[in-house]
Amino acid sequence: MPEIRRDYVIDSGWVVISPERNMRPSDFKVAKVESGGKDKCPFCPGHEAMTPPEVLAYRKDGEKDGEGWWIRVIPNKYPALRIEGDVGYEEKGILRKMNGVGAHEVIIETPDHDVRPYELSDWQMHEVIRAYIDRYIDLTRDRRFKYILIFKNYGKDAGASLSHPHSQLIATPIIPQNIAEELEGAKKYYIHSGGKCIYDEIIRREKEIGERVVMESENFIVICPYASRFPFEMWLMPKFHEARFEKIGLNDELVWELGRVLKETLRKLFATIPDVPFNYYIHTSPINTKNEYRYYHWHLEIIPRLAKPAGFEWGTGFHINPMPPERAAEMLRGN
Amino acid sequence: MPEIRRDYVIDSGWVVISPERNMRPSDFKVAKVESGGKDKCPFCPGHEAMTPPEVLAYRKDGEKDGEGWWIRVIPNKYPALRIEGDVGYEEKGILRKMNGVGAHEVIIETPDHDVRPYELSDWQMHEVIRAYIDRYIDLTRDRRFKYILIFKNYGKDAGASLSHPHSQLIATPIIPQNIAEELEGAKKYYIHSGGKCIYDEIIRREKEIGERVVMESENFIVICPYASRFPFEMWLMPKFHEARFEKIGLNDELVWELGRVLKETLRKLFATIPDVPFNYYIHTSPINTKNEYRYYHWHLEIIPRLAKPAGFEWGTGFHINPMPPERAAEMLRGN
Repeated sequence: MPEIRRDYVIDSGWVVISPERNMRPSDFKVAKVESGGKDKCPFCPGHEAMTPPEVLAYRKDGEKDGEGWWIRVIPNKYPALRIEGDVGYEEKGILRKMNGVGAHEVIIETPDHDVRPYELSDWQMHEVIRAYIDRYIDLTRDRRFKYILIFKNYGKDAGASLSHPHSQLIATPIIPQNIAEELEGAKKYYIHSGGKCIYDEIIRREKEIGERVVMESENFIVICPYASRFPFEMWLMPKFHEARFEKIGLNDELVWELGRVLKETLRKLFATIPDVPFNYYIHTSPINTKNEYRYYHWHLEIIPRLAKPAGFEWGTGFHINPMPPERAAEMLRGN
Repeated sequence: MPEIRRDYVIDSGWVVISPERNMRPSDFKVAKVESGGKDKCPFCPGHEAMTPPEVLAYRKDGEKDGEGWWIRVIPNKYPALRIEGDVGYEEKGILRKMNGVGAHEVIIETPDHDVRPYELSDWQMHEVIRAYIDRYIDLTRDRRFKYILIFKNYGKDAGASLSHPHSQLIATPIIPQNIAEELEGAKKYYIHSGGKCIYDEIIRREKEIGERVVMESENFIVICPYASRFPFEMWLMPKFHEARFEKIGLNDELVWELGRVLKETLRKLFATIPDVPFNYYIHTSPINTKNEYRYYHWHLEIIPRLAKPAGFEWGTGFHINPMPPERAAEMLRGN
């Protein structure tokens, strides 16, 4: 019997868990990853002139926009939002808009064109997360921005147009819908429970039950959430309560640990479904608002892109997931 | 400059309209439609035994589950939800679920395996809509169901696994998130405006402005909505106020007219982008609740599947659309 499960946090976040009989990871079709040639890759060392000027780079020696870097951050050449101008909110009856101001940056994770996400060294992964934090903190100073999403698209079916390892970051002048919904759900729980964090409760309960836990380290845990929208969906959460992602930058040991856990999570995912296209993104507190979001708890969500949402999903917002998270977690744990 | 536009109805429904320079319809890559062979098609006449027994068919002569039909409705062989059992809501702290009860049916639109959606005759289109209404009304009698979504997936990239023309219907025991959000937005407007329908206002304003109108008939209008999430997104709306889709069944002239407008809309879409994969779905009032949803207004949304939502869209719920609806409407009007 299929089940309809409700998201832990979002009251209207229903998912149909409709197991297809004996489905195996190999039943999901994964497009072969085409590594675009290095010759034309704008993210490869020596090709720095092919991108807009860098906004950040980690290098020992060498000049800005030259070689020698191991992390390089550049504005997106085709930005969804533009850095210049003011927000200029305008309302004409039912027509409401603002200017598309924002930042859209690309974090080049390594000079190495062909490395897979989980093949970065621990040190390189640490540097990637450092770059996330550095850019995040710098952009929070721009008072126009209310939210910054750090995310990664891997593979064509997950929306990546270039194969060289990279993440992205988009700063927006509004608090996006999905974040607003999580904040609302977390706040509601906080009030009703007399000041408890719902994510702390998720971690407590899921550890107790065990079957949806993928892995744990001292300070982080990875689970397949109860109402997983996608096959092999995972949430990576700090076990300590913290509303703001960028705060881990204050403790370098945590940055190292997060890097190792993220790497191991991706290794497990790829061991289960080789070269699976995926997105991950960090959900954290909005910025430049008076609210401190004490009730919130940052986390990173990984969504493999194996199922194709169609008319039902788009028409209702209701996902159908053929892979129960308990089975997904079991396979991931074993790999 | 890109714009960030807010949905007419849903307060948190933001979209980035980020025009890519000189983008033409031919810049969108459309996978070739593969017509699976007729030999193995379970929806072709003569193959009735390949499907579960029909729940409805329009035929003059002939037997149940035999040939001679021009419309045939069957339970989905691989249903997302199952018809047996009760809802059985269960809440264990943060883990909340119900049984996956529901109906999942396939409406075979024609015996003709190879016809494109806009190539159905006016009469056949009328019969398709009649079948939607018949099945809709029948399923509303099941008090377990709170919502029925009628939808169509066309093309592989829109989630269709079979090419023979068909629509689907899923009845759910809950009111889905997207519907709940529209109802909430419409209700809010109704209260603030002293009893006006927001969709009536959308129609009035968009007719006045004109640039986003694709076509009109006496009783229906098709627009590219102001905050279109997808390139060439269209909304087909009755110009008269009516909360419930199935009510048009009371006036057969309206059924004919809706069929002709839907057909012409799809013809225009295919003339602009040949064989474009798309979904459409009907948004109408929930069923079996005490509420009459006077403030709501049913409509049909068409979403071509040309852009691939990636990490940003899934992480935020915020869409990026490279094709401004004004340009989309202009092209569609001209075709």
